Amino acid sequence: MGAVTNGQGGATHRYQALADIICALLDSGVLCQGMRAPSVRRIAAEQGVSISTVLHAYRLLEDRGVLEARPKSGFYVTGGGPTARATPRASKPKDGPVKVAVARGVLSLLEYAGRPDIVPLGCAIPSAELLSAGGLDRFLARTARVKGKAYNIYTEPRGDAQLRREICHRALRCGQVLRPDAVAITNGCTEALSLALRAVTKRGDAVAIESPTYFGLLQVLEALELHAIELPTAADTGLDIAALAQVLATKPVKACLFSSSFNNPLGCSLTDDGKRAVLALLERHGVPLIEDDIYGDIYFGPERPKPFMALGRQADVIYCSSFSKTVAPGYRVGWIATERHMERVLEAKFALTLCGAALPQAALAEFLSSGGYDSHLRRIRRAFAENIDRMTRAVDRCFPAQTRITRPAGGFVLWLEIPGRFDSRRLFDVAIAHGICFAPGAIFSPSKSHANCMRLSCGHPWDARIEESIETLGTLTANMLEKV
Amino acid sequence: MGAVTNGQGGATHRYQALADIICALLDSGVLCQGMRAPSVRRIAAEQGVSISTVLHAYRLLEDRGVLEARPKSGFYVTGGGPTARATPRASKPKDGPVKVAVARGVLSLLEYAGRPDIVPLGCAIPSAELLSAGGLDRFLARTARVKGKAYNIYTEPRGDAQLRREICHRALRCGQVLRPDAVAITNGCTEALSLALRAVTKRGDAVAIESPTYFGLLQVLEALELHAIELPTAADTGLDIAALAQVLATKPVKACLFSSSFNNPLGCSLTDDGKRAVLALLERHGVPLIEDDIYGDIYFGPERPKPFMALGRQADVIYCSSFSKTVAPGYRVGWIATERHMERVLEAKFALTLCGAALPQAALAEFLSSGGYDSHLRRIRRAFAENIDRMTRAVDRCFPAQTRITRPAGGFVLWLEIPGRFDSRRLFDVAIAHGICFAPGAIFSPSKSHANCMRLSCGHPWDARIEESIETLGTLTANMLEKV
Repeated sequence: MGAVTNGQGGATHRYQALADIICALLDSGVLCQGMRAPSVRRIAAEQGVSISTVLHAYRLLEDRGVLEARPKSGFYVTGGGPTARATPRASKPKDGPVKVAVARGVLSLLEYAGRPDIVPLGCAIPSAELLSAGGLDRFLARTARVKGKAYNIYTEPRGDAQLRREICHRALRCGQVLRPDAVAITNGCTEALSLALRAVTKRGDAVAIESPTYFGLLQVLEALELHAIELPTAADTGLDIAALAQVLATKPVKACLFSSSFNNPLGCSLTDDGKRAVLALLERHGVPLIEDDIYGDIYFGPERPKPFMALGRQADVIYCSSFSKTVAPGYRVGWIATERHMERVLEAKFALTLCGAALPQAALAEFLSSGGYDSHLRRIRRAFAENIDRMTRAVDRCFPAQTRITRPAGGFVLWLEIPGRFDSRRLFDVAIAHGICFAPGAIFSPSKSHANCMRLSCGHPWDARIEESIETLGTLTANMLEKV
Repeated sequence: MGAVTNGQGGATHRYQALADIICALLDSGVLCQGMRAPSVRRIAAEQGVSISTVLHAYRLLEDRGVLEARPKSGFYVTGGGPTARATPRASKPKDGPVKVAVARGVLSLLEYAGRPDIVPLGCAIPSAELLSAGGLDRFLARTARVKGKAYNIYTEPRGDAQLRREICHRALRCGQVLRPDAVAITNGCTEALSLALRAVTKRGDAVAIESPTYFGLLQVLEALELHAIELPTAADTGLDIAALAQVLATKPVKACLFSSSFNNPLGCSLTDDGKRAVLALLERHGVPLIEDDIYGDIYFGPERPKPFMALGRQADVIYCSSFSKTVAPGYRVGWIATERHMERVLEAKFALTLCGAALPQAALAEFLSSGGYDSHLRRIRRAFAENIDRMTRAVDRCFPAQTRITRPAGGFVLWLEIPGRFDSRRLFDVAIAHGICFAPGAIFSPSKSHANCMRLSCGHPWDARIEESIETLGTLTANMLEKV
């Protein structure tokens, strides 16, 4: 990092030039949303300027909303760094329950995800490049070589015992007390969610969900012939708890199915107190909660958000998660945790898929106990935060003026709201013809209420191809808006 | 092999001594049911006797029912070699449909299967020792090392394309013409069956099944809230086609779910003509057939039996199978093949388990294309035939007189029928206390009509521990019979 050498002037210019350097670090992705800025002392030494000059520059950036000072901790890149645009408006879904019948087009998202000629902004799948750095495959290779014989068996009904112990150890870190026998390994989070719903609902029952929510949840509801009650959800504060209270008081809710943290697609979470309030409400109404914590480990803040289950040990919570978003989409290893409903869960699992593949579970157990997962998580959190930052800046630059953008606090998707009567499904068809895939908003709601929204996956490292695809999407969006 | 040297006499004694030697080969398992006996010329040379002496000995064994002469082919160990006992009687199930609610105890079978202190005659799981000889794990280790990065993704909805092509190639060998796009990889045969049933039935529908049938099928029916109509099935000739015709004419059958070959637990199959007759009946009534061909590759006869799908290309058949019984129980890779119902199958699969683990599929594809699977199959067919033969002899020796035994033509399970009002579930509880697991007969029927039967798995190489466990089971059975 070169010193400030424009040599044109006094302290005024010097601190402005320094501020520009910090902005360049942000633009280049060296600094990302939520990260601590280099210390005042370090910048002063590196740039050969006085501490007061650095402070001056940082205060200027603070005024511009780029940095924020935190007491006794230094300066941080603010959440709103890469864009000053408004966040999407809180959803106002129609009164439920509604029958769930999501677009059949959802299946095509996975097909497009496998095509190298399509820019992969559709499915929320992390790039294989990024994941391979974790070295899990080497663990699988070794496990197959060393334990292949012993592991070529059906696993016990709950799945690999060592993996379940590792999962329980990790859960303890955020206050979730789990017995290994209260955990069962599943074919990804998808199977965990379908088993959870089978355990506490029957065909025709109504399940309360966030709006928007992950289209995969809606597919599970559809496959089990359940109805959905959509709850208003804000892009910054998450689920509307007052609305939940009203729905519980007035509708026949059989279960709730909420994301623990970083709602997909909004990237927002309830606070711990908010989660406690939800648990209290559900307990009062005797309604079980199924929580989907698949994004919980991909947090950009100082610590991992707590799952609901960690905040109310007596509550009737079924916890679902997987390794698919953090390290192993190709391994199909997820898990379900429940004290009360394990018997029903195991019966259904045994009947419908028997058990999961043994060696991938054994390899993951070795990987977790090696400590490799933690350093891998640190790496991918940084990578996803940077990807989101870059994507946000690109959208900010390329999309029509009134486009609203989320500020995800974790995960790796962005959600855009386009003004007016915009139909992102039409944009989807045009975008695919341009070799770009994204997830159209309507599939995130059973009432198709988010047709003017779209989700962009930021799972792939930023490159010119992705940058160009955002430019193209922005232009196509602007063109379609003009015609509306 | 030493020459006949008792030296006590002429040709009469010599051929009898030779016959005893052949019986010893049978008892020691060197010769098994269905195998060709050593040629007359070879035995004559090895034993230093004349050809007519050998022929004399072989004719004696033929008279005793141990060998059978086949024109232009030589002498073979007869199917009935190891025992002269009667086969179980054809089932006469009650009129259906009946609600399916199989014993919850089924789950415990899998738990016992994982316990090294229990003799594993319960679950039909091949021994890991036997399977590891195939070397599939080395393929997985290499695939993880070489392709780990590229395969750490969700597979396309139908699963690994190379594996599907390999499956189609193999299917052609027995006349089954499959397009790779008409095949989807599943989490074992269990998921294939549940997806097939989901595709052609709705909750409350009636499905016709063999009686007895694999308890896992019953669990799938139960999980999907389907009803069962049990059809009489004979231990030698299989499904009673006339009874099927009558049921189709008089009951609201929505689908049939039959084993392609080697019914589990009976080990019997329909002939090709029988299968064609079934297809013709089903076509006339517009009823789809789901076939479970999981044991098809484990045949003891001269050639692989044809699946239904190979015998009627236009018929509405959904084919289900997996690699779990032949090479990879721990991999959870099965497949479903259907031209007509693929869209519904994929929708359900996507919603309920998304997709299967990628690397195990890739490793299996490499294994199949290497030709390793064929030599492995030859090896395990011999091993299973031998295991069944040994088990049959032991049962013959140790079980009460009127016990009936199947003569499986493939697979690796034996089915025993104990006379009278014997309750094998009670025997099960006692046997577990003795450290022995088997599958009690009642779980093979939704009407629990086979309570006096039991299934013994012959998936493990014969050893003293298994031999002793059969002695124990025989004694316990005799004791219980006395008390009845």
